Amino acid sequence: MDWGFDLWDQQDVIERHTQCGLEQLERYVKFVKERAEIEQNYAKQLRNLSKKYSRRGVKEDQEMKLTNQQAFQEVLNELNEYAVQREQLSENMTVTICVDLTKNLHELRQERKNYFLEIKKCQQNLESTIKQLDLSKKRFEKEWKEAEKAIQQTERIQQDPNTTKADVDKAKQQENSRTHVADASKKDYALQLQKYNNEQNNFYHSEIPSALKKLQNMEERRIRMLADGYVQFSETEKTLLPNINKCLDAISTAGRNINEKQDTAALIEQYKSGAAPPADVEFEDYSQSVKTTMNNENTAQLHKARIKLLFHKKNKITSPDKNTPPSVEDFTGLPPDQRKKRLQDKIDNINRELQKEMEQSEAMNKMKGVYEQNSKLGDPSSLEPQITETVQNIASLKEKLNKYQVHTHITHTHVFI
Amino acid sequence: MDWGFDLWDQQDVIERHTQCGLEQLERYVKFVKERAEIEQNYAKQLRNLSKKYSRRGVKEDQEMKLTNQQAFQEVLNELNEYAVQREQLSENMTVTICVDLTKNLHELRQERKNYFLEIKKCQQNLESTIKQLDLSKKRFEKEWKEAEKAIQQTERIQQDPNTTKADVDKAKQQENSRTHVADASKKDYALQLQKYNNEQNNFYHSEIPSALKKLQNMEERRIRMLADGYVQFSETEKTLLPNINKCLDAISTAGRNINEKQDTAALIEQYKSGAAPPADVEFEDYSQSVKTTMNNENTAQLHKARIKLLFHKKNKITSPDKNTPPSVEDFTGLPPDQRKKRLQDKIDNINRELQKEMEQSEAMNKMKGVYEQNSKLGDPSSLEPQITETVQNIASLKEKLNKYQVHTHITHTHVFI
Repeated sequence: MDWGFDLWDQQDVIERHTQCGLEQLERYVKFVKERAEIEQNYAKQLRNLSKKYSRRGVKEDQEMKLTNQQAFQEVLNELNEYAVQREQLSENMTVTICVDLTKNLHELRQERKNYFLEIKKCQQNLESTIKQLDLSKKRFEKEWKEAEKAIQQTERIQQDPNTTKADVDKAKQQENSRTHVADASKKDYALQLQKYNNEQNNFYHSEIPSALKKLQNMEERRIRMLADGYVQFSETEKTLLPNINKCLDAISTAGRNINEKQDTAALIEQYKSGAAPPADVEFEDYSQSVKTTMNNENTAQLHKARIKLLFHKKNKITSPDKNTPPSVEDFTGLPPDQRKKRLQDKIDNINRELQKEMEQSEAMNKMKGVYEQNSKLGDPSSLEPQITETVQNIASLKEKLNKYQVHTHITHTHVFI
Repeated sequence: MDWGFDLWDQQDVIERHTQCGLEQLERYVKFVKERAEIEQNYAKQLRNLSKKYSRRGVKEDQEMKLTNQQAFQEVLNELNEYAVQREQLSENMTVTICVDLTKNLHELRQERKNYFLEIKKCQQNLESTIKQLDLSKKRFEKEWKEAEKAIQQTERIQQDPNTTKADVDKAKQQENSRTHVADASKKDYALQLQKYNNEQNNFYHSEIPSALKKLQNMEERRIRMLADGYVQFSETEKTLLPNINKCLDAISTAGRNINEKQDTAALIEQYKSGAAPPADVEFEDYSQSVKTTMNNENTAQLHKARIKLLFHKKNKITSPDKNTPPSVEDFTGLPPDQRKKRLQDKIDNINRELQKEMEQSEAMNKMKGVYEQNSKLGDPSSLEPQITETVQNIASLKEKLNKYQVHTHITHTHVFI
């Protein structure tokens, strides 16, 4: 089965069919472009969604590092990564399908045009040959008529009793001349006919079939490109599916890692004041001549105030970050448990610094000893300024430490009203 | 670690924190709704894309059932199915996350409100008791002052030399009376104090901790719901991934099933005319007294016309579907190969019908024989109309068959110019 052999007389069909084929390829490129745009738009919307909901939890909760807040941020991050994958899909589709096919499309268009130009040229060639054949045949026909006329003229003159020998000779000469020309035009016609038949044979059995066969081959390549384009359409996405799956898995994991007990415990860690609930109100026995003091009066008022305070923004006092200026280092504004924690942090920090300074001091003194034993290694007095500095640092740190330890002691023995 | 015990004095923190928690749940529902809308929109765009490109290939190509045309339609169908899956995702997200969480959110809001109302009630109760205690204490203080005054009055009268026994008795009576009232108010104050201390104890060690503990439990349930919601967010999609994968696989398969050789062969099947390329032009020898006939003139013209026709819509004659009215049953307008195919189709159809009619006729005759042997089974003459009809049908079909066979014979011997 071969277009060149079987469809030699159906070139308009082939012309139309291959044109449609190229249009189909073009339409597919357009289709993939539109899909890529949809994908791009989808990714953009997902990205915006992720952005819109990101980092908008209550600030305090973020500071507390609540697992459910962190998990939501992870969900949003993974959704963003999901969008990145969809964007990648859009880009890959454009690059691996649209760009390649568009390039191929232009090449195929040119190729097709060339094949039809080739056929056109052969056709024009054959047409010009048949015109020559026609002319040649007509000349042969005309010359032969002239020759026949000359023969008849000779016959007539010979049969006429009044003719002279000169007349007969002239007629015979005319006849010979005419017959000679007719013979020559017959030979020319025969040659032209042979030439035409050769060309016609070549046209129908070689040139046309060869061009049509090439068009068939081109059409098959076009179909193969399109087929590969269809496969690419899904394979591009399949390649990204493992990444998309990773995003989905990460979202599930984020959800599963949420620890609700840990989150409610974090609130305690952050806000526990360490205060004990109020003790019993004491009996004030006026009959034992207890003086009615302002103090006693105050105690009753205090109980009443406390009940109210449970419900009204008392936390303005206990919320540490907002109300304690950082320069006040004894944290007197904080409730005892929070204060204890802060003071302990300070003490731990100072102890670490102290440890460092002591080690440095020890190293300096060792080096000084070495220099004293062998002055070639260095001048012991050159170390003095640094040794003095560490000694001063150690003294200053010890003083600070002492201060914080006193505060801590007060806090421990402090009775919360 | 327990909100009831550790955060008994941080109710405003808990109030704010649980409020934020519910807002977070609400925000997540909103987030999922927006994601579902994006998904819906994406699905709609994919659907429209599939629709836009569907069934718009050249009609002839569809009739030819070209594998590459069919494959593109399959790609579009699978893209549509893909869109259906994304729509399903949107719907599942809405149903399994938004609907459930919204219902839970309303319940949690009511629950939270109830716990704080409970605390409020206990607080108001305690406040009213402390007011009573205050009154009772003040009365005791006042009465005791009065009693002291009465004692001092008695002492003063007893030391006054001018007083009568009646004065002393009266003062003592007054003193007794006052002391009695003071004692009674002391007892009342003591009772009120005991009552208040009991209530205060209950408030701080039972009522408040119990309500706060319930709020902690509620908060933990809320976090768990949210965590499940995050997991659902990805699991909903994971459940649909196998279906989406099926679509992608089907697209790849559609691309791989394209057979380019089969498609170019289909064009031959559809359009092959069966005509042979023109034979050599014969030599017309005027010298042998061949007459210059119109016929000869025409042969040369015909060759020229044929070359032209190869390029100019000659197919208007050979394209069968468009130009052959279906009523003309000898297909004379078609090129020989196409005509032969159509005639053979007709003959095959008639042979099938004929076979059916013959079988029916045979069955009828058998039944008639049975009825003739046993008239109880049926009246043989009742079958006559049907037997007559089948006989007529058979005759008509045979006639038609004969006609087509004659046409076929002519086609076989027909010489194409």
